[in-house]
Amino acid sequence: MASKQAVHMKHGQGETSYARNSSFQKAEQNRMKPLIEEVITDLCSSTSTLLHGKIVIADLGCSSGPNALALVSTAINAIHNHCLQLQQPPPEIFVLLNDLPDTDFNTVVKSLVTLRQSKNPVVVTGVAPGSFYERLFTSNSLHVVCASNSLQWLSKAPEDLTRNRIPAFDIDEHARREMLPMVREAYEKQFRKDFKLFLELRAKELVSGGRMVISLVGTRSDVIASKFSLFPGIVAQILSVMVAEGVIDKAKFDSFYVPLHGPSIEEVREIIKEEGSFFIKEMRVHDPTAEMNIALSSPSKFVNNLIALFEPIIVQHFGEVMDEFVRAAELHWSLDVDGSLREERREWSGEQEEIEVVAVKQEPEEIERRGLVGPEDFLDDFDAVAVAANIAERSLREEAERRCHDEELEDLILKQVVAANLAAKDNDDERRRIREEQREKFIDLVSSDED
Amino acid sequence: MASKQAVHMKHGQGETSYARNSSFQKAEQNRMKPLIEEVITDLCSSTSTLLHGKIVIADLGCSSGPNALALVSTAINAIHNHCLQLQQPPPEIFVLLNDLPDTDFNTVVKSLVTLRQSKNPVVVTGVAPGSFYERLFTSNSLHVVCASNSLQWLSKAPEDLTRNRIPAFDIDEHARREMLPMVREAYEKQFRKDFKLFLELRAKELVSGGRMVISLVGTRSDVIASKFSLFPGIVAQILSVMVAEGVIDKAKFDSFYVPLHGPSIEEVREIIKEEGSFFIKEMRVHDPTAEMNIALSSPSKFVNNLIALFEPIIVQHFGEVMDEFVRAAELHWSLDVDGSLREERREWSGEQEEIEVVAVKQEPEEIERRGLVGPEDFLDDFDAVAVAANIAERSLREEAERRCHDEELEDLILKQVVAANLAAKDNDDERRRIREEQREKFIDLVSSDED
Repeated sequence: MASKQAVHMKHGQGETSYARNSSFQKAEQNRMKPLIEEVITDLCSSTSTLLHGKIVIADLGCSSGPNALALVSTAINAIHNHCLQLQQPPPEIFVLLNDLPDTDFNTVVKSLVTLRQSKNPVVVTGVAPGSFYERLFTSNSLHVVCASNSLQWLSKAPEDLTRNRIPAFDIDEHARREMLPMVREAYEKQFRKDFKLFLELRAKELVSGGRMVISLVGTRSDVIASKFSLFPGIVAQILSVMVAEGVIDKAKFDSFYVPLHGPSIEEVREIIKEEGSFFIKEMRVHDPTAEMNIALSSPSKFVNNLIALFEPIIVQHFGEVMDEFVRAAELHWSLDVDGSLREERREWSGEQEEIEVVAVKQEPEEIERRGLVGPEDFLDDFDAVAVAANIAERSLREEAERRCHDEELEDLILKQVVAANLAAKDNDDERRRIREEQREKFIDLVSSDED
Repeated sequence: MASKQAVHMKHGQGETSYARNSSFQKAEQNRMKPLIEEVITDLCSSTSTLLHGKIVIADLGCSSGPNALALVSTAINAIHNHCLQLQQPPPEIFVLLNDLPDTDFNTVVKSLVTLRQSKNPVVVTGVAPGSFYERLFTSNSLHVVCASNSLQWLSKAPEDLTRNRIPAFDIDEHARREMLPMVREAYEKQFRKDFKLFLELRAKELVSGGRMVISLVGTRSDVIASKFSLFPGIVAQILSVMVAEGVIDKAKFDSFYVPLHGPSIEEVREIIKEEGSFFIKEMRVHDPTAEMNIALSSPSKFVNNLIALFEPIIVQHFGEVMDEFVRAAELHWSLDVDGSLREERREWSGEQEEIEVVAVKQEPEEIERRGLVGPEDFLDDFDAVAVAANIAERSLREEAERRCHDEELEDLILKQVVAANLAAKDNDDERRRIREEQREKFIDLVSSDED
């Protein structure tokens, strides 16, 4: 079983390093730029209290090399341009890059610090190592999450296969065809589980209204069940030749799984809806055939791309077999005299589909449940305590005002009573006065008659 | 001039690596533990809204190796223990390690991820590369800052010396003695400038009420002006031998500055007070002679310690001269037949003083100026917008209540007027009734007399 830690790209700056074999990934990042710019404009224009004067941006699965900064640089520039245009004070920016702990962070860090700015606007940077299938950040602390070309990597080999010791790529072609539906289903299931977990974790970490811009290599819906994924298929073919040559052990080969799954756009949409924390703002697909063909256009490009992507997991599983792997890969290429393998590769790459999604973290259902919407509902959970304290203070003040109000009323009633008493007394006095007047001036005819 | 980037400890796990030559630093970290525990208890017990359910802890100048996690691990354990004892739900913890970009972060990251916990309580981790003499974090985002044994490193060689091309350690002993006061003053001035900047930057990054626990290698006040600092002095002595041997160029030697300054406790206290963002909660000194003597107890320990601390800046300035440096350092040790150098080292190390400070970020002066203290003053600036929105909403409610109150009063006054009118009318009616009674029953004796 391929451990989680193995899934990192090849270190360094050498000819076969990921840093120098990632033009395909670069093209995809370029396509993500307008999406990121849109998301930034949305966030910065928002009159809500979303940003609090700072914006925290994380790139998950940044890898190392020249691509590592591409997405976050786009975001930083978009923020600056937006604020310049609207003559708005720019927020402080915190950029965080993530990848697995085995990533070559020494390289990442050296380029990352070039983004830092101590003043106007403040840009600070950090690295958050770890699997994005685990918690990476505190709750409600992120505004933008990007992930380019990384979510097709699973957290591990499909459990259904490892548990039942079913090889992903049976050397026997007949058995392989027979097992393919089950293998695909196991990969699909693992992807569903992993992607759902990814969404749950990010929903915790993003502020309400926070955005995700993700892209991943998927598979066209119409061909989804018929074939093996492109790269894992090629790697398995090459490794199977090495088994035939006795370079690697068949049992070892049978327990090797490339933790990659290219989902269909429907799978992705369905899982996002099912998980429920995000609504899909935009979803696009792109046909990467042209770029794939360039990446596979010469034997050296072909081999270098395979090494950059798969050396770490191959070495972890099989040990130091890379020299043999390279030789077998070159052979795989050169043996293709009639072009049938090239045709197969072409066909394969034509079935790939780059899926791009912009998703917004939804307001918690809480609001709907309570049936009450107040300003508090649009504040981050993060501020719950602050708001609570504030409300408590306001309540105290309201209480005091109410008490004061009551006292005023009581006072008024008292005055009224006094006034009424005085009025009654006046009335009595008046009557007494009239009676006395009566006594002085009049003779009571009736009464005296009656006497 | 030693560039900022050179000040990192020696990479890796080898015999001369910092990771294996940092027992002195380890001892100091152990002494800082109770201070960190105290700070955590203070913060977690605080009934204020300081934490918002999460606590962000940064270790500045963490270096690599086994010491890198010591302080933050202490903090995490202290939080867990405190919350367990008080049966309080633990906050989410975000641990950030900082050091210069040239630090061996691949090693740091591999140990850092061992601290992570996805659940109950959530602990997430990150690395923030950069000089702590620049902004590293967004405003009001930290609760605890630790820095052990790193603040004696300056941001660069003293400007007064580099600008005027004054060597820190003149090879001519007479000139050296003559220049010593000026050299010390230049170092002092640079330290003052750097430490003040450090305080200003951290004051921006810490929440109000946030804590700093720092320690640095200082110099006893009574000897401060008389001597060169221990390690820079030894390094200069060794390098000067290499100049005499023609291994390194004298001009190159004269432009070499070790960016280290051991301040006195008075210097540290004065700068903190002068800068004004922090109040000193606790300040302690420790005599590290015993540990220093262990670090210098054998030729191999002596040489390894020098290499671990100074190889990066020596190589950056002089190029690949470490083999010669090691040989000269061993010679420096072995030539000391009469023990006079050992005596000098002893004396030197007796003049060191480990200074420990616990400082609390003060409430902004703003409060004093306004003369008003309300709960808002104890909330982070971070929440300003949220609180403002909340206040606006409360104000609306208060306004409505006041209006309602006024209406009630008006209503009451109206009723009173009506009542008064009714009373007056009653009074009139009564009088009219009496007059009519009069007319019916009495003869007006007086009036008729007067008629």
